[in-house]
Amino acid sequence: MNNLYAVIMAGGSGERFWPLSTPRRPKQFVKLFGGKTLIAQAAERLEGLVPPERVLVVTARSLVAATRRELPQVPAENVVGEPMRRDTAAAVATACGLVKRRGGADAVCAILTADQLMSKPAAFRRILADAAVAAAKTDAIVTLGVTPTHPATGFGYVEPGARAKTGTRTPVFEARRFVEKPDAATAKTYVKKGFVWNAGMFIWRVAAMEQALAKHAPALAILAAAVADAAKPAGVLKKLYPQVPRISVDYAVMEKAEKVLVAAGDFGWDDVGSWSAIPNHFPADADGNAVAGAATLLDCSGVSVVGEGAPVALFGVKDLVVVSAKNAVLVCAKERVAELKKLVARLPVQ
Amino acid sequence: MNNLYAVIMAGGSGERFWPLSTPRRPKQFVKLFGGKTLIAQAAERLEGLVPPERVLVVTARSLVAATRRELPQVPAENVVGEPMRRDTAAAVATACGLVKRRGGADAVCAILTADQLMSKPAAFRRILADAAVAAAKTDAIVTLGVTPTHPATGFGYVEPGARAKTGTRTPVFEARRFVEKPDAATAKTYVKKGFVWNAGMFIWRVAAMEQALAKHAPALAILAAAVADAAKPAGVLKKLYPQVPRISVDYAVMEKAEKVLVAAGDFGWDDVGSWSAIPNHFPADADGNAVAGAATLLDCSGVSVVGEGAPVALFGVKDLVVVSAKNAVLVCAKERVAELKKLVARLPVQ
Repeated sequence: MNNLYAVIMAGGSGERFWPLSTPRRPKQFVKLFGGKTLIAQAAERLEGLVPPERVLVVTARSLVAATRRELPQVPAENVVGEPMRRDTAAAVATACGLVKRRGGADAVCAILTADQLMSKPAAFRRILADAAVAAAKTDAIVTLGVTPTHPATGFGYVEPGARAKTGTRTPVFEARRFVEKPDAATAKTYVKKGFVWNAGMFIWRVAAMEQALAKHAPALAILAAAVADAAKPAGVLKKLYPQVPRISVDYAVMEKAEKVLVAAGDFGWDDVGSWSAIPNHFPADADGNAVAGAATLLDCSGVSVVGEGAPVALFGVKDLVVVSAKNAVLVCAKERVAELKKLVARLPVQ
Repeated sequence: MNNLYAVIMAGGSGERFWPLSTPRRPKQFVKLFGGKTLIAQAAERLEGLVPPERVLVVTARSLVAATRRELPQVPAENVVGEPMRRDTAAAVATACGLVKRRGGADAVCAILTADQLMSKPAAFRRILADAAVAAAKTDAIVTLGVTPTHPATGFGYVEPGARAKTGTRTPVFEARRFVEKPDAATAKTYVKKGFVWNAGMFIWRVAAMEQALAKHAPALAILAAAVADAAKPAGVLKKLYPQVPRISVDYAVMEKAEKVLVAAGDFGWDDVGSWSAIPNHFPADADGNAVAGAATLLDCSGVSVVGEGAPVALFGVKDLVVVSAKNAVLVCAKERVAELKKLVARLPVQ
């Protein structure tokens, strides 16, 4: 499909993988998983489906230079910086304008994440291509769903309805409803009923998104149109961003849109959402210790260690996450890693 | 007393305060306690009693240069390096020879430690001066005893016998026997019976030590005599050290000597023997966390943190010792710090 554009959303506040990630170097720049930064992997997995000229990135203005360095194949002008932190709806409206300027109203835009892993990139390209076909043929917003591997409580779910007639190999369903992160019991019923994980990626025709914005978020429709009209978006963003609402795209558009589809499958999706992901990515010893980098352990169990800074030695401890980075050292109870934000909020300004 | 010489024994293998101490930079170079290195403090507390010209240091040859830098007031030739690791008896024999060459057979030699704290230096000088008087008047070896503050299990004890007629203000007793580190119950009976801690420091007249060595450790007597005869000790040490026994001075001499006295008192002695000393030297918060350096804590208790390297952040952990040094990071269960040597033995060669 020669009018498919991929817009990688590269925000992030750098809290979940502190101290490897920081506000100045958020999660998408972490190299721990897969040997390259997550954003480099996000762009590379598009190869063969979306050429670099049609890959765009919306990120913080302060991260534009670092992002361009990570993505040398992507044209510099395709990496666009937001002048201030807004929520995802503003970034999607900006993406809508950027893609319209390049490909017109019939171009298809895939909003993709910058900081997740996908261990089956070919499967991802296949489902993405089919979702793009579905989006091109309809006025629907097509979300990507992930077939659950277990009743996770850390993700939102999508309930699939009737199968849509998209003619694609990937099954595409009407999205009956989106549900928030469930408790454990609810998650089990969701999985039993065939709900899929909401991967936070969605695909739409420019004209379809323009209509949805005009109807549900007029201020964002104005932003999208202004970006589409601008030779360079920086001035428009600087002028309009202070005026657009801080709102998520889910709340501003997805929950209100008339037609939402979900293209579901297994592409080895892994959101590597916190330090608790370490044992999934580094081999554990018989005592459940998983080590990435330089570390010496004696009489430890259930410990996850990342040694990118000074080498680490642990003795007689259990169920900890220990991260030695050049800028800081983290020692965290394993059961508290999901709350790491609270600790980061207490740190002296870096 | 113008013929009192102080010989600071500065060995040490750098295991107990790893990673702040290392084999190349053992405990006497740690600056954490008192803001200066322990060896600098060991020399400074002699001021007013022993002039720098009569202060000597016996250390490892590899540590001579660093030791001289720490003690700029001490003449360079007074810092003597052992060519290989032997036990304390060889170092004492070397000290005996060095002091004889400078002060003759009637000079008094105080063998002192390099890596302990004494919070009452004036009291220490007083007891040391009195012990020197006692040693000058007799053929006894005078040990320094510390009045126990609690029934410690980490030190050896000395049982005092009859008071010796030394004419000193500090009470000096015959040392009835030396006992090893006791268990908790035994320690209580020791304290009740008036036993004192063996501080590992002792004072003797050169002639008295020569006699004791000749009688109990002839190979060491030969070493002492050769050092006394040499203009520069390095050649003698290089030649004789391979031949002298690896034996402690306690075993070689003290346990066999006919006349041993003990001068006991309170001079704020603190052997800072392991990381468990941290809470004694840095103020603890309400949750028992003691922090030296840069650290951020959230929901922690009973934690000791030393941040000399990358700043440390701890979340939801308890009863740990965490040390961030430039060369390495240690995370150790508090109850295991006494066994730190086992961990250090596993480290990659540094």
